[in-house]
Amino acid sequence: MGSKYPPSMRRCLPLWTLMLEAALVVIFFFFTSYDTLSQDPPKQLMRTFRVFQDVTIVAALGFGFLNLSLRRYGWSSVAFNLFLLALGVQWAVLMDGFLDQHFQNKVVIKLSRIKLATMSAMSVLISVGAVLGKTNLLQLTLMALVEVTVFVTMMMIDRHYLNVDAHVSMMHIHVFATYFGLMVAWFLSRSLNETVVQEKTQTEKRSSLFTMLGTLFLWIFWPSFNSALLDSPTERKNAVFSTYYALAASTVTAISVSVLAHSQRKINMTHIHNAVLAGGVAVGTSCHLITSPWLAMVLGFMAGLISIGGALCLPGYFNQVLGTHDTCGVHYTFGLPGLLGGITYILLIIYEVNWTTKSISRIDIQLFFGAGTLSLAMASGLITGVLTGLILSLKIFKAPPAAKHFDDQAFWEFPHLATGF
Amino acid sequence: MGSKYPPSMRRCLPLWTLMLEAALVVIFFFFTSYDTLSQDPPKQLMRTFRVFQDVTIVAALGFGFLNLSLRRYGWSSVAFNLFLLALGVQWAVLMDGFLDQHFQNKVVIKLSRIKLATMSAMSVLISVGAVLGKTNLLQLTLMALVEVTVFVTMMMIDRHYLNVDAHVSMMHIHVFATYFGLMVAWFLSRSLNETVVQEKTQTEKRSSLFTMLGTLFLWIFWPSFNSALLDSPTERKNAVFSTYYALAASTVTAISVSVLAHSQRKINMTHIHNAVLAGGVAVGTSCHLITSPWLAMVLGFMAGLISIGGALCLPGYFNQVLGTHDTCGVHYTFGLPGLLGGITYILLIIYEVNWTTKSISRIDIQLFFGAGTLSLAMASGLITGVLTGLILSLKIFKAPPAAKHFDDQAFWEFPHLATGF
Amino acid sequence: MGSKYPPSMRRCLPLWTLMLEAALVVIFFFFTSYDTLSQDPPKQLMRTFRVFQDVTIVAALGFGFLNLSLRRYGWSSVAFNLFLLALGVQWAVLMDGFLDQHFQNKVVIKLSRIKLATMSAMSVLISVGAVLGKTNLLQLTLMALVEVTVFVTMMMIDRHYLNVDAHVSMMHIHVFATYFGLMVAWFLSRSLNETVVQEKTQTEKRSSLFTMLGTLFLWIFWPSFNSALLDSPTERKNAVFSTYYALAASTVTAISVSVLAHSQRKINMTHIHNAVLAGGVAVGTSCHLITSPWLAMVLGFMAGLISIGGALCLPGYFNQVLGTHDTCGVHYTFGLPGLLGGITYILLIIYEVNWTTKSISRIDIQLFFGAGTLSLAMASGLITGVLTGLILSLKIFKAPPAAKHFDDQAFWEFPHLATGF
Repeated sequence: MGSKYPPSMRRCLPLWTLMLEAALVVIFFFFTSYDTLSQDPPKQLMRTFRVFQDVTIVAALGFGFLNLSLRRYGWSSVAFNLFLLALGVQWAVLMDGFLDQHFQNKVVIKLSRIKLATMSAMSVLISVGAVLGKTNLLQLTLMALVEVTVFVTMMMIDRHYLNVDAHVSMMHIHVFATYFGLMVAWFLSRSLNETVVQEKTQTEKRSSLFTMLGTLFLWIFWPSFNSALLDSPTERKNAVFSTYYALAASTVTAISVSVLAHSQRKINMTHIHNAVLAGGVAVGTSCHLITSPWLAMVLGFMAGLISIGGALCLPGYFNQVLGTHDTCGVHYTFGLPGLLGGITYILLIIYEVNWTTKSISRIDIQLFFGAGTLSLAMASGLITGVLTGLILSLKIFKAPPAAKHFDDQAFWEFPHLATGF
Repeated sequence: MGSKYPPSMRRCLPLWTLMLEAALVVIFFFFTSYDTLSQDPPKQLMRTFRVFQDVTIVAALGFGFLNLSLRRYGWSSVAFNLFLLALGVQWAVLMDGFLDQHFQNKVVIKLSRIKLATMSAMSVLISVGAVLGKTNLLQLTLMALVEVTVFVTMMMIDRHYLNVDAHVSMMHIHVFATYFGLMVAWFLSRSLNETVVQEKTQTEKRSSLFTMLGTLFLWIFWPSFNSALLDSPTERKNAVFSTYYALAASTVTAISVSVLAHSQRKINMTHIHNAVLAGGVAVGTSCHLITSPWLAMVLGFMAGLISIGGALCLPGYFNQVLGTHDTCGVHYTFGLPGLLGGITYILLIIYEVNWTTKSISRIDIQLFFGAGTLSLAMASGLITGVLTGLILSLKIFKAPPAAKHFDDQAFWEFPHLATGF
Repeated sequence: MGSKYPPSMRRCLPLWTLMLEAALVVIFFFFTSYDTLSQDPPKQLMRTFRVFQDVTIVAALGFGFLNLSLRRYGWSSVAFNLFLLALGVQWAVLMDGFLDQHFQNKVVIKLSRIKLATMSAMSVLISVGAVLGKTNLLQLTLMALVEVTVFVTMMMIDRHYLNVDAHVSMMHIHVFATYFGLMVAWFLSRSLNETVVQEKTQTEKRSSLFTMLGTLFLWIFWPSFNSALLDSPTERKNAVFSTYYALAASTVTAISVSVLAHSQRKINMTHIHNAVLAGGVAVGTSCHLITSPWLAMVLGFMAGLISIGGALCLPGYFNQVLGTHDTCGVHYTFGLPGLLGGITYILLIIYEVNWTTKSISRIDIQLFFGAGTLSLAMASGLITGVLTGLILSLKIFKAPPAAKHFDDQAFWEFPHLATGF
């Protein structure tokens, strides 16, 4: 029975990942130490710990269950997500430390650094949504290493050369990760078998409830995620308020528009899973600058519209023309709302500078840096995504054949297979 | 295939809800602003944010999954819950602001106000348990608007005219929401088809585990809910202790009594879902006044008894005589334990005044105000529930016909229907 | 239909547990009071509350869902877990108070005491994993009372006679609870029917996702659990970092080794559920002493190896030779990694003393106390486990017969049974 499924990871994966983990231990041994000079007062430490915990909930529970709607791929979705998170965080801590200006022999492990690393590793969890079911774990491991490296480098460039603070830089994660994932998916979708896709990616009643669980975790902890990297209490408060209002508005909008879009006025569950979060994504970049709820609500409203619109149009037109397959719809869940958010941020800083300084040259600079960061996120996502996709589509990775896509049986031992019938 | 299910929301819902959302944006634009005078120190802000987050978990995850036991209505339960929460919070913030004494042109959005709004919106989530499966989303939307308005008004009356603090007022939410929901259900249960009810409201193995998940979230975060509106650290501590002990006692009692009540000494899962929470409900109103665990445990013990007793007797006798149908048993989950809590509170303040002042006239006043608040909650729930029920049973709402009750297919697009067989 | 399942709890359980609950109320009435002298500043109180909440999440959600993989025993797993937690906490608070040095007439209920009680009650939740499906609720109740008493006594001995602080003492919970549970399981596994075990303990797709939910909750909140009893901010920080790194390393290792161990290079889901947590268990005892991530990662790496190794070898060899049956694999999930952690702790203090004092006699004392605590945990687990197992295997408890093991139907009312076919 086992021979029906190819020994795709037969030799490579466990040895590679064990060696990788051993290498990580060695690198940590030589280059890192805990933060012994506890500069933070206990109160500050506790706040950071709570935010860090919220971020981990978003990453492990939220993203773990968000992609569970594939009815034959549940085990892989949630377990691979945890694997990539655990690996990505370790790698991101190292990369962030090595690229730091103040790096001198030792990377100091601080709670805020692990928090940042967890958020950076989320780029992988977003991208995975586009390639899920078409890759084996070795491909995902390589993708995680490349993507985290690129994302952390991008944040360093933003900080040092474009003078953009960590929050704004981090909020472009949606745009970056989406286009990175889409490009990788583009290379891996070449041999897709349409019948297999049709049959195996159907929504199922129970799986959808697990996905809803993931959605709700993301919904509840998104205000924490959006305010995680802000220091000033006022900005944090604004971020929490705006995210909450944007989420509320996009929830109402998404459900209404999903009904409106269906010929028999029925709701599509897949729309709901994704579009209720669109508000939180769209408001991310500018949430700390928004000082009245209506703007956040308008953003949430538009994000809901765009997300449902994307869910209706992209799979039929854009993806077919391009010949790509976006398994969990990351393009309309994170990509388009993220773009909306990036553009809103640029408009908002232009408007603010306009009101405060009235100097054209300042506007140009702001516009330049704002647009530069967004373009950088998109461009680096696209380019490195193409390169990663090229590498991952090499034969040596032994990707699962099209007939075995979206199927847990390619990777997991099932009891009824083990007992032999 | 689609024609088997009536186009109940075909025209109305999406346009109405989108217009409503747009109207909310406009109202927020003209009448609200964020709290820019950040009087709260950061520490206070952080505490409020944590409590607010706990309350959101109770509302979105706890109530979202608590009503999931209907085996063909899971998607609607959890998604409608989120929709009503998102809508109810926006509306409650506005109503609370407009009815505030200090209202002058602008409603100031504070974190504590959103927290209060989330808790007020929970009245809808409780009531929905009684009407679930017998209404469409348009009816639920209208019900949410009416119920939140009435509840916020009731809290304002309590505060200004009955001199009752926000915590006690809020804790009557269980009584108010239960009788509101039961009255609405009374009007909507007229045409129930007994066979459909029997078949579609059966417990199912897997769904029950999702319900248990909701129950556990409520169980864990109920101490946070009960202490959310208390300011003094001592009162908060008392509230947390009492709630925890009441929950522990009611859990042990509920499982024991459920075994005792069954002729073959088996446990009924539906009892467990509801009755383990009864202790937390019953102790709510007086949790900050209780200063020793035994009283909380006695309350939990009695609440467990009452809840299981209600689960056994109400559906068979009370509901049948009245001709109502309480889908998720809110009457014995929230209503009866809430009444027990309200009466305990009255007894407790009488006892306290008795001990401290020994003046008969003081007792009368306290008794008057205490009983007044409880009666107000019950009466306003009953009366406005009847009115809402009357309106919602109008033909123009196109409620789903009895044969399609408790069925996700009336509202949701299913993949196997979409592909056409 | 009902007669097929024996009336195992027909008379005993509900009366006993109700009487027990009533007795607890009476004891609390006479011997306890809330902590009215609020020495803790509000800030401290809030921190304790948050940690307490995290611990409750670990206990109720984490352990509640961790043991859900038995496909016909889901309801019992999660509901019995909650019952035992609610009962165990009440009992542990009393025992801890009575055994306290400062006990004078009244046990003062403090939040830190409830936190400690919740953690002590977790010993029961761990042990239950070994006996699940082979006992009725009355047996579990008795086991909980005995185990909590022994564990709290053991912690008292550690504190007073071995001079070991609460954190280290608590972290031996894994070793204690595992061997206690295994010994009880030894007596109850005598009459196991191999076919029933084979058929009913198979993994199932959906149940596994619920188990994964439990695993993720434990994974996320394990740093909180490991740092819950530490007072110094630096130690707490070290504990959080080390636990997180150990978990990350054991996750990567567990998945890799699980692939490596399978002849067709497939992953075993049951391994994943358990082994990803092994790192957190192994690092527990010494997490506050570890000051660089590599050591935590090495521990996590080794814990992952040991746990997967145990999962492969123990059920086939050790358990068969001993004639015991470890339902949820607590031996390799908590037992072996706990032993690894205990030994690491001893080595670590020897190493530290060696470096700082260079005096042989000091090392001997430290070694003596360190090894003494670990041996005490293991010995008291083994001995009291044997005694409890002996008592529980008495006929008067009417344990479910072998044919009805691992079956919810022995305890729960099912709808299709109720309606009579």
